[in-house]
Amino acid sequence: MEILTTNNVWMMICTALVFFMHLGFAFLEIGLTRQKNTINILFKNIFIITVGLLLYCLVGFNLMYPGDFNGYIGFAGFGLDAPLTDAGTLDLAYNEGYTYWTDFLFQGMFAATAATIVSGAVAERMKILPFMIFTVIYVGFIYPIAGSWKWGGGFLDSLGFYDFAGSTLVHSVGGWAALVAVWLLGSRIGKYKDGKPQAIPGHNIPLATAGVLILWLGWFGFNGGSVLSADASLTSLTLVTTCLAAAAGGVVAAIASTVMYKNLDLTMFLNGILGGLVGITAGADVMSPTSAIIIGAIAGLLIVFAVSFIDKIKLDDPVGAIAVHLICGIWGTLAVGIFGFSASTNDAGEFLNANGDVVATASEAANTLAFLPQLYGVLAYAVICILSSFLIIFILKKTMGIRVSEREELEGLDAHEHGMDAYPDFRLNEH
Amino acid sequence: MEILTTNNVWMMICTALVFFMHLGFAFLEIGLTRQKNTINILFKNIFIITVGLLLYCLVGFNLMYPGDFNGYIGFAGFGLDAPLTDAGTLDLAYNEGYTYWTDFLFQGMFAATAATIVSGAVAERMKILPFMIFTVIYVGFIYPIAGSWKWGGGFLDSLGFYDFAGSTLVHSVGGWAALVAVWLLGSRIGKYKDGKPQAIPGHNIPLATAGVLILWLGWFGFNGGSVLSADASLTSLTLVTTCLAAAAGGVVAAIASTVMYKNLDLTMFLNGILGGLVGITAGADVMSPTSAIIIGAIAGLLIVFAVSFIDKIKLDDPVGAIAVHLICGIWGTLAVGIFGFSASTNDAGEFLNANGDVVATASEAANTLAFLPQLYGVLAYAVICILSSFLIIFILKKTMGIRVSEREELEGLDAHEHGMDAYPDFRLNEH
Amino acid sequence: MEILTTNNVWMMICTALVFFMHLGFAFLEIGLTRQKNTINILFKNIFIITVGLLLYCLVGFNLMYPGDFNGYIGFAGFGLDAPLTDAGTLDLAYNEGYTYWTDFLFQGMFAATAATIVSGAVAERMKILPFMIFTVIYVGFIYPIAGSWKWGGGFLDSLGFYDFAGSTLVHSVGGWAALVAVWLLGSRIGKYKDGKPQAIPGHNIPLATAGVLILWLGWFGFNGGSVLSADASLTSLTLVTTCLAAAAGGVVAAIASTVMYKNLDLTMFLNGILGGLVGITAGADVMSPTSAIIIGAIAGLLIVFAVSFIDKIKLDDPVGAIAVHLICGIWGTLAVGIFGFSASTNDAGEFLNANGDVVATASEAANTLAFLPQLYGVLAYAVICILSSFLIIFILKKTMGIRVSEREELEGLDAHEHGMDAYPDFRLNEH
Repeated sequence: MEILTTNNVWMMICTALVFFMHLGFAFLEIGLTRQKNTINILFKNIFIITVGLLLYCLVGFNLMYPGDFNGYIGFAGFGLDAPLTDAGTLDLAYNEGYTYWTDFLFQGMFAATAATIVSGAVAERMKILPFMIFTVIYVGFIYPIAGSWKWGGGFLDSLGFYDFAGSTLVHSVGGWAALVAVWLLGSRIGKYKDGKPQAIPGHNIPLATAGVLILWLGWFGFNGGSVLSADASLTSLTLVTTCLAAAAGGVVAAIASTVMYKNLDLTMFLNGILGGLVGITAGADVMSPTSAIIIGAIAGLLIVFAVSFIDKIKLDDPVGAIAVHLICGIWGTLAVGIFGFSASTNDAGEFLNANGDVVATASEAANTLAFLPQLYGVLAYAVICILSSFLIIFILKKTMGIRVSEREELEGLDAHEHGMDAYPDFRLNEH
Repeated sequence: MEILTTNNVWMMICTALVFFMHLGFAFLEIGLTRQKNTINILFKNIFIITVGLLLYCLVGFNLMYPGDFNGYIGFAGFGLDAPLTDAGTLDLAYNEGYTYWTDFLFQGMFAATAATIVSGAVAERMKILPFMIFTVIYVGFIYPIAGSWKWGGGFLDSLGFYDFAGSTLVHSVGGWAALVAVWLLGSRIGKYKDGKPQAIPGHNIPLATAGVLILWLGWFGFNGGSVLSADASLTSLTLVTTCLAAAAGGVVAAIASTVMYKNLDLTMFLNGILGGLVGITAGADVMSPTSAIIIGAIAGLLIVFAVSFIDKIKLDDPVGAIAVHLICGIWGTLAVGIFGFSASTNDAGEFLNANGDVVATASEAANTLAFLPQLYGVLAYAVICILSSFLIIFILKKTMGIRVSEREELEGLDAHEHGMDAYPDFRLNEH
Repeated sequence: MEILTTNNVWMMICTALVFFMHLGFAFLEIGLTRQKNTINILFKNIFIITVGLLLYCLVGFNLMYPGDFNGYIGFAGFGLDAPLTDAGTLDLAYNEGYTYWTDFLFQGMFAATAATIVSGAVAERMKILPFMIFTVIYVGFIYPIAGSWKWGGGFLDSLGFYDFAGSTLVHSVGGWAALVAVWLLGSRIGKYKDGKPQAIPGHNIPLATAGVLILWLGWFGFNGGSVLSADASLTSLTLVTTCLAAAAGGVVAAIASTVMYKNLDLTMFLNGILGGLVGITAGADVMSPTSAIIIGAIAGLLIVFAVSFIDKIKLDDPVGAIAVHLICGIWGTLAVGIFGFSASTNDAGEFLNANGDVVATASEAANTLAFLPQLYGVLAYAVICILSSFLIIFILKKTMGIRVSEREELEGLDAHEHGMDAYPDFRLNEH
């Protein structure tokens, strides 16, 4: 009982921190785009967190955790259904790590994240109504169904696929949809001139920087809470690997971009941190500090090359969401298969988690925990996410259209979709 | 002992979150007003949190929790007086949920909130010195005396009035004073043209949005900490009802304002969230998720109509404080009487709290917990708050004056009251 | 076991809060300087937190806590070396207050703070490369070696020197280096005209204000976590003294500056709060609320005079870092020797900590805990910090130069060192 209370306190705090990430995303996205689309981005972010939570209450939670099911899709019914004891009170035997309510709220905060990732990638030119429809379907249905494959105990869980806190289940799920949406939407006017990508500078770098620091703070809850209890060794190891990967990702991205572009590029530094965070997320509870630094460092390197590559193949992603969430999400997931469970091994070569439980023998580790199940997982999520997001966005494109008019794009979505100005007291440059 | 430590950790975190709400209020208030009054609003907010805390230490805490008293006003003496054991150490038997120090600090963070609500409503035209005097009296004396009626075990507590975390005790107490102050102060120059309300757009919508998200985060502590322990089922139910009401309030306000004004209005979306939060505050620990969504949704609807109505009757409230804190505060308080204790009932129709304790029989619920005690509470607070705030502000108006000169208002309070500029490096529009 | 879990939860939350202080520092520093140097300051802050953490992992932690050593310098080896049980699991007997991982991360978050303090003082004119080199040496080596003297159990610990959470070990360590750096660097162009200091207004006061509130929030973790457990009476007393000192510091600084300059100066109000926080940090766990208010109030007074004095002797410190962190750091450290352990005394006149343990007899208090050991501590840190920072910065000055060119300073470091603009959509004033 007492340990449940402690566990539940930790999980509620982590829930609050994951909620706070939505401010981080909002600041990052508006900071890296132009002021004329600020209201629109903020509106989308507020829409995602509110509607996402209500949808998760209505259908998402019970799609993601359907109980016994066929491993592909299941549904435990509409709304929340708190387990009660015979006396009519909340049944605390539900889980030793948290109550039913905490479980719902923690998972609900995660759900909205996937759409937020898309929001950044399609910024500055997507119509808001189709974006809202996409969000409802993707957050309300695709995300939880896909999530059930692993966290709900579905077929990928049986295959030995490992994704601790969502490098794939959250970040890649958002990242694949971002990729599809950017491809179907096309690039912003002025992004390519004679086939060459042009920089469109973000309008508020202090807020973008704050966004990254808030996201890093939120990751204390995102990863720390994914332990699903306050277990002292697992949670604290998770925070250490999370922070070291973030630091390494940032530093390596900063160095690489300085070498390549002869410039101390703050944006790349920031995206490197995010890449490191996404990269460590799949295995934050099972990595040694050294492995965490290596995983983060490689994520930082990937960011620099991916941002440049995505730019060159004419996918216009204003905030670098595809590089951060998709590329580093894939990397982090595969990294679990490469680094194995490096947190600790015993003399017999068995892999241990931070509690010393043997999670794999040396030979099992070579098979079960190795590369293939991780690859299966990455591919399975690629398939469902690409197909579903293509289907949704393609239909929206053919019916109502997904792109604002040229005039609206040039004058800004704030004026046209919202009739509001983010900074009416300031004199602005037109561009 | 161990459970006390856990409870106390939760309460300290909630204290920190409620403290952080002051940044939320500050961002919201400056974001929704003009840049020329930014320094003034920030100064007021910093004044409120610092002076409020010192006053609560000097007199407030012991006015609000006087121990045995006549039920209307009592005072346990100046300063803090920690209960000690015979050995001279802090007596931890004080309360199983927190220490004496935590109790003081958590309640102290609440106290300052009432004045902050007023600060937003009187922004852009009230002289700072009378505002500071008002704050000292209202936060130092009125708030804690009024609070003692319920939370200090006073006469309203005996009547069965229920206000879990302060829809009335905090939000309406601030809201009534805001109403009186706005009425005595008059509207800003330019707010009404030929009798019609004119929009005066806020100068920094990203910060206003951040303010709302920070306030929502702070509400995890405001409501979660009002459980006064880390009780797993009560705290987690409270967070769920709080977040669902916030989401529902926002979504309904966004829909209603879109229907009415054909515009995706971010400000209304944000105020709807705040309305939902204020609305659920009186009963967050006793509502079912469904009731929470309904309460929040109605709060969101009320916001849209109240903002428009208050505007029309020529009460100029730049940030919507009266609609959010007073109207939704009243609504939330009455809602407890309407929805009863909906979190759970047993087969006998008895109302249970989240711990399964019977809090009312079916018949008691129809009487004791029903509408009337809630209405008494709302009226009692209306009386003390309207009378006291009118008295204070009216005297200030007749003696030193409460309104800045026309020139000062037009040129901005920052230049005249503070000799500072909030954004000296930026070129500004005059208005 | 259960109490360890609770303690560890508290310590992890405090770690997160101290991490978040880096956003507070970043906002404060950019807010109080000109927009043309914003990217540069943000880059430095992101550099400090990422590189600082990696360095603390590589060498810092084991320099600061070397185990048995000569009391002046010791090193327990490169990297992290988690204590394992025979079964290969993390040894939780490490400490009853936290795990090895939590210990590392909490201390690592502290380490970066020292360089951040310097960052503010040298803003707007120091080359970034020598700043980065300085940071690596100072954070990676000087800070942990100096820290080992007290917190690592070194010679100052044996002398009875007391510094609870780092008025000296963190704030003065940063403050001394800031003093030396400002002196070697010289003042910004335009700061002195005919020998008189000119105000160079900060460009974003809302963010500066947010920075201070975020720092105050972070101090809940900085001081609260320095208890090194979740001990209910010690942690909650610490939060109360911390908040009261902050409030008193702010209010007294606001009053003093209003009396002296006839102006309600928001910046002084904010710096007064920070001064109060730094001042209470050395003794936050052993002070009574009254002593805390007095210590904070004197810190607030010191801020007003110190800022003015430092300006007059032509040390150009754009953010007031020397006044806040050095002057109030010294004051807070000496205050422990003056106020003794005022939290509580028993009938025999013995000094007790909040747990009621006798920490000093009345006569011991007059000797051991009195002024001299505190003075020794202040002087010892003055010597190592002044010497080491002078040596590093002087060599950097003579070799690569530490100051940007006049043109770069006038046009801003953002354009020249980073090729980026913090606010490209806004029209700016040149100055």
